[in-house]
Amino acid sequence: MPAHNSEQTPAKTSITVLGLGLMGTALATAFLKAGHPTTVWNRTPSKTAPLTAQGATPAATPAEAITANPLVLVCLTTYDDVTELLHPHTTALAGRTLVNVTNGTPVQARKAAAWAEEHGIAYVDGGIMAVPQMIATPAAYVLYSGAQEAYETYRPALAALGGTRWTGTDPGLASLYDLSLLTGMYGMAMGVAQSFALIRSEGIGAREFAPLLTDWLNAMPNVLVPGTAEAVDSGHHLTDVSTLAVNQAAFPNLLTTFTDQGVRPELFAPMLQLLDRAIAEGHAQDGLSRLVELLRVPRPDGS
Amino acid sequence: MPAHNSEQTPAKTSITVLGLGLMGTALATAFLKAGHPTTVWNRTPSKTAPLTAQGATPAATPAEAITANPLVLVCLTTYDDVTELLHPHTTALAGRTLVNVTNGTPVQARKAAAWAEEHGIAYVDGGIMAVPQMIATPAAYVLYSGAQEAYETYRPALAALGGTRWTGTDPGLASLYDLSLLTGMYGMAMGVAQSFALIRSEGIGAREFAPLLTDWLNAMPNVLVPGTAEAVDSGHHLTDVSTLAVNQAAFPNLLTTFTDQGVRPELFAPMLQLLDRAIAEGHAQDGLSRLVELLRVPRPDGS
Repeated sequence: MPAHNSEQTPAKTSITVLGLGLMGTALATAFLKAGHPTTVWNRTPSKTAPLTAQGATPAATPAEAITANPLVLVCLTTYDDVTELLHPHTTALAGRTLVNVTNGTPVQARKAAAWAEEHGIAYVDGGIMAVPQMIATPAAYVLYSGAQEAYETYRPALAALGGTRWTGTDPGLASLYDLSLLTGMYGMAMGVAQSFALIRSEGIGAREFAPLLTDWLNAMPNVLVPGTAEAVDSGHHLTDVSTLAVNQAAFPNLLTTFTDQGVRPELFAPMLQLLDRAIAEGHAQDGLSRLVELLRVPRPDGS
Repeated sequence: MPAHNSEQTPAKTSITVLGLGLMGTALATAFLKAGHPTTVWNRTPSKTAPLTAQGATPAATPAEAITANPLVLVCLTTYDDVTELLHPHTTALAGRTLVNVTNGTPVQARKAAAWAEEHGIAYVDGGIMAVPQMIATPAAYVLYSGAQEAYETYRPALAALGGTRWTGTDPGLASLYDLSLLTGMYGMAMGVAQSFALIRSEGIGAREFAPLLTDWLNAMPNVLVPGTAEAVDSGHHLTDVSTLAVNQAAFPNLLTTFTDQGVRPELFAPMLQLLDRAIAEGHAQDGLSRLVELLRVPRPDGS
């Protein structure tokens, strides 16, 4: 007779997923595939059908969804949507863990956490570092912050979505890390778009240029990022490699070329202003890492 | 008796280097180390001393330097400096090859090439993809364009500086490729500076955050660059991964967070305007690759 293996396997955490857009659907699918009993709810009920076909339990109302499980994950478009959906259900949420992966700011996350604490809800904020297509692949991970004990309890279940990275008990940290990484990505995206616009201005095939640009950009993060971090943490920005003076001298060439070649300079013009300010404030011999300091708004006390 | 090996080795090309700033000095040093007899000249003669100590021949005047060798490499601060230095010596330069690695624009390179052609000088423009410290290492390479026959003749000598990449007979191409790659680098540098400014706003150590940012940025070029190239060349920008609509919705969060956290938004504000314009012009379902088209200034004929 076959052994009753099911008795030896720890029970899989049951989870509720509220919000079934592209991302919410990907998250619920990942939980189902990992064997977690999953209850789903969406404002437009038809969105539940593909998940129900995979074994999810559809809930008719938010209250029914919330009370179904001890772990409730919410993935909506904005924090305002989250407030509107959940504030009528504070009593039902009390004693449960709420994991909120809705995109927002650190301020919004802290406000949501304060509301949750007031009502006895364990609040974990999540920042998903992946597009829906990447969920549950090795490349995906989620940043978490807030209620650490609840996070540790449900970490094995959350691992179904991708890697888990704890950032701290301040509930704003997952969002801060998330947005800081996105910021780096948008910088690269601006550079890549502008770079292709420039090379295309002479009709050169983008595919012909792409390998050069890929190799060039691949060689950069491993040098630029740790070097900048070292300078920022130590406060020593002096360099003999690529000073702000050298960059300030080279940058007008770049903007002139954009204009000569019929490429709009709008994404790059502010960088020249920043370099000019850096020189005016006496940082000519510092490296680009100095810009990190210059991007801070001085506090009223001058620090 | 030892064999007279010197008779079996092809003679090393003799080279003149004009301009001994950090980069010019690095280039002359690389030629010397590779065994090329090298004549050097600099406006401030004292700069020749370290190179003379390594075997270089100092020239007292530009004319003496130019007439010393068939290959003349010039590395000054601006094209205006090149014009001022070389135009009095057109007769001496006639019949020689001039490799100009001074930073400039495609328009400047073409103008220099036209002048050179008029005077029987073989003109090769060069774009150095390295800082001086990287010259002659495997990571360094130089883009070349212009007089192809002269380039092929002297390519073995030029290889002492790093890899050689031919971009075409249009003398503006080396500069265009160079500036397009620099553009990509500056985008990444803007992103990295802004990213660290944001993470530092909460006092989080830059070194603590750096590994996350490095991994995140390392994962990007191999996907973003070929994907953008494919879309640009094919004209098909539709995506189901990360639409302009999704990015436009997320971007104000980012700018709000900059302001909330006391980080200046100036480097990133133009990106929101560009995303807004993309949506207004009907590209909501396209990917970020569409921005390449939107960065082109429409020609008077509307194309």
